[in-house]
Amino acid sequence: MLELSRADLHGSLGDPVMGSMTFLTEIMRRYPDAISFAPGAPHVGFLDDLDLPRCIDSYLDYLQHERGMDAQGARRLLYEYGPGKGLINDLVARALRADLGIDVPPESVVITVGAQEAMLIVLRALYRSASDLLAVISPCFVGITGVARLLGIGIVPIQENSGGIDFGQLENACAVARARGERIRALYVAADFSNPSGTSLDLPARHRLLDMAAEQDLLLLEDNAYAFTAPADGALPSLKALDRDRRVIHLGTFAKLCLPGARVGFAVADQRVRVHHEPERLLADELAMVKTMVTVNTSPVCQAIVAGMLLQQNGSINALAAPRSEFYRDNLARLLAALARLEDVPSRIKWNRPTGGFFVRMYLPRPADLALLEISASEHGVVWTPMAPFHLDGGGANELRLSCSYLDPEEITAGVRRLGAFLRQVC
Amino acid sequence: MLELSRADLHGSLGDPVMGSMTFLTEIMRRYPDAISFAPGAPHVGFLDDLDLPRCIDSYLDYLQHERGMDAQGARRLLYEYGPGKGLINDLVARALRADLGIDVPPESVVITVGAQEAMLIVLRALYRSASDLLAVISPCFVGITGVARLLGIGIVPIQENSGGIDFGQLENACAVARARGERIRALYVAADFSNPSGTSLDLPARHRLLDMAAEQDLLLLEDNAYAFTAPADGALPSLKALDRDRRVIHLGTFAKLCLPGARVGFAVADQRVRVHHEPERLLADELAMVKTMVTVNTSPVCQAIVAGMLLQQNGSINALAAPRSEFYRDNLARLLAALARLEDVPSRIKWNRPTGGFFVRMYLPRPADLALLEISASEHGVVWTPMAPFHLDGGGANELRLSCSYLDPEEITAGVRRLGAFLRQVC
Repeated sequence: MLELSRADLHGSLGDPVMGSMTFLTEIMRRYPDAISFAPGAPHVGFLDDLDLPRCIDSYLDYLQHERGMDAQGARRLLYEYGPGKGLINDLVARALRADLGIDVPPESVVITVGAQEAMLIVLRALYRSASDLLAVISPCFVGITGVARLLGIGIVPIQENSGGIDFGQLENACAVARARGERIRALYVAADFSNPSGTSLDLPARHRLLDMAAEQDLLLLEDNAYAFTAPADGALPSLKALDRDRRVIHLGTFAKLCLPGARVGFAVADQRVRVHHEPERLLADELAMVKTMVTVNTSPVCQAIVAGMLLQQNGSINALAAPRSEFYRDNLARLLAALARLEDVPSRIKWNRPTGGFFVRMYLPRPADLALLEISASEHGVVWTPMAPFHLDGGGANELRLSCSYLDPEEITAGVRRLGAFLRQVC
Repeated sequence: MLELSRADLHGSLGDPVMGSMTFLTEIMRRYPDAISFAPGAPHVGFLDDLDLPRCIDSYLDYLQHERGMDAQGARRLLYEYGPGKGLINDLVARALRADLGIDVPPESVVITVGAQEAMLIVLRALYRSASDLLAVISPCFVGITGVARLLGIGIVPIQENSGGIDFGQLENACAVARARGERIRALYVAADFSNPSGTSLDLPARHRLLDMAAEQDLLLLEDNAYAFTAPADGALPSLKALDRDRRVIHLGTFAKLCLPGARVGFAVADQRVRVHHEPERLLADELAMVKTMVTVNTSPVCQAIVAGMLLQQNGSINALAAPRSEFYRDNLARLLAALARLEDVPSRIKWNRPTGGFFVRMYLPRPADLALLEISASEHGVVWTPMAPFHLDGGGANELRLSCSYLDPEEITAGVRRLGAFLRQVC
C-alpha cells in the first residue's frame, strides 16, 4: 500500500499557520460551550431572513428587463459555464463608482471565488520570477501569505506601527531588494481595519503610500474587506479611489456584505498591459486567463445571488452595508467597553481601540500560545486567536486577537467576563 | 500612468493555448450563425427543467431528516463558510461506492470548485521541487497542462497510440527522468473517452497502467469526466475502482451530470500521509489545506444544488447519468454516421470512431490552423477546434476536434453537411 510523506509534499503544507488554524478549529469543536472570539465570519443573524430564490429572481428580472434577455436565455446564463471574467461585472462596477468613488469600467473587474481566489490569481499573474518579492505589513492576514507560499513567492515583512505602516522600513526594503538584484513587486495592504490588527491608514498616510508606490515602482494590493464597517461620516476614500496612476489593484468580497456561502469576491485591475504584436489589454484580462486555470469561472448561480441582493438595494453596496456596519460597530464598541470595565486585570495587559472592523489586538505579559489557549478554553470557556501565526518575523508571541463579528452582543459581554477571569489567573 | 508589459507577467500568460482559446471564443462571437463543433459543454436541454430552489430544498430536507439538523441550522450551513474539505462528501462517497465501485470513506473526498480546482490543489500538494515532473498523454486536456504551467511544473508528454498509451515510452521517460536526478511524480490520464481524442483504455491496459504505476512509483491522476457516457453494458471499471495500492487520485465533476454553473467537482485522495510528530493523515486532508488558500471552501449553496439533484435520484450518479449518457451517445452516433455518409471528401481525411464521450478527432491532409478555421467559419458557417494546442510535442498541426455534446441532433446533421462542403473546398 502506497504511503506518502508530508516531507515529500509541497513545502507550504508544513507552514505552521496551517497547523495553527487546524488547532483553533479543533479547540472550538472540543469546547462547544466556550464563547469564541476567534471566528472572523460575519454574524449569522443577517443570514436568517435570506431568501435565495428571491435573490436569483431579482437578477433574472434584471437580465430580462434591463439587459433585454428572454426568460430562458437568462436562466441558461445561470446554469451554464460563463465568462472567466464574470457575469455581474457591470453591477459591481456601478456600485464601486456610486458608493466607493472607484471609477473603473466593468471590463477592469474580475469576479472571483471570494477574495481568496482574487489574491491567488493576482499574485500568479504579477509574479514572474523568484526575484519578485511581496511586501506585507506584519502582522498580516494569513490568506495572502498562504497564497505566496503556494506559489513560492518570497515575502518581505514591513512592521506595522502606530500610523499603520513603517514607511522608512518599506523604502529601505525596496532599496535592499534592488541592491540584491531583486525587486518588491507589490505591497499587500488593508488600509481600513486590517485583519488581524484592526489598524487603519489615515488620509495623509494613504497619499504617502501612493506616492511611495510611484517612487519605488510598486503595485499596491488593497484588501478592502472591512472598510464597510466605517461610520458613515468617518469613511476614508480607499487607495483605489485615490489612485491616479493605476498603482492599485483593489480586492473586494461579498462574504461579509451578502453571504460567505456564495463565495463571491472580485479584483479591480484597470492597469494597461502591453502585449507584443497584440492589441493592448487590461490586467483584468490577464487575471481572467489565470482564473480559467484555477476555477474556470465563478458560479453564475452564486453571482446571481449576490447581484440579486445588490439589486434589492437598488444596486448600492452602501445600502447593503449600512445595517451590517452599524451592528459590527455596536459589537466592537461593546467589546471595547467591556474590556475597559475589566477590574483587577494586570495593567501590563494592553489592547488597541480600533474604530471599525472586526478585530481588537491584545498584548499579554506572557506568551499567548496554543497551551495558554487550551487553558483559556478548558478552564474559562473562552477562545481567542493567538497572533504569532500572523507575524512574519517571529514576533507577536504575547499577542492575541479578539474578533467581535460572529458573537451576539450578550455573548460579548459574557465572553469578556470570562476573559477577565482567565487573564487574572494567568497573567 | 502605470503600464505593465506581458513580458513582465507570469510566463503562463504567454502560453499559446491561452491565445488559441481566446481566438475560438472570439470566432464564435463573430459568426453567431455558424454551427460550432467546438464547445465541450453539456447540452443545455438538460438544464431547462432545472428547479434550483427545489434542489436546495431536497438537500435541506436531507439535512433535517437524515442528519438530524433543525431547519435553521440546515439553512445556516448553506449560507456560512464551511469546511474546506466540503459538505456533501458523504453523498459523493456513497454514490461512488454504489455506482462506480469506488469504495472510499467520505473523509478521502474533497469537494472542489469544479474538477479544475481539483487539478490545481492536487498538483500543488504533490509537487515539491523542480525535479518533480508530470507525465501527460499527448494530445492532452489543456486544463491540466495549464495548471502545470501556473505552478511551474515540468511536463513530460507521452504519445497516445491506438491502445491509448505508449507504455514503452512511459517506462522510458521514467528511466530518463531518474537518470537526470528527476522523477515523474504522477501521470494524468483520462481512461474513458479522453478530451480531446475520445480515446479509452481497455481493461488489460488499465491493469497494465496500475502495474506500471507501482513499478515506477507513479501516482495516477484519473480524470473521470466523460466515463458516464459509456453504454450501460460497456462501462469499464475506473482506475480508482481497480486500485489496490492507493496509486490513483480520482478527479470528478458534476458539471456534465448536473450543471456547469454550480462549479462543483471533487478529488478522491485516500492515500495515507505520514507527518513527523503528528498522527497520520489522508492526502485529502492535505488537499483541503491547500484549498483553503485557493478558494477557502466550495460554495455550500452550490454543493446543496448538486446534492439535491443527486438525492432526487436516490443518491445515484448512474440514475443522473442515464438520460444524459443516452443523449450524448445518440449525438455521437449521429455525428459518426453523418461523417460516414460524406461523399466526395478526399480519402486522406480520416477520423477516429469513439464509442462514448463528447469528441471525435479528425486528421486533414493540411494544417487545421486558425487561418483555416477562419475560412471554415466565414465561408461555410462551421466551427471546430484546432488540435495543435492539445499536443505537447509540436504535433497535431493537421488535426481538429469535433465535439457533439452541445449541439442539437439536427444541428449535427446540418453541421456535418457544412463541414463536408468546407473539406471539399480546402483539402
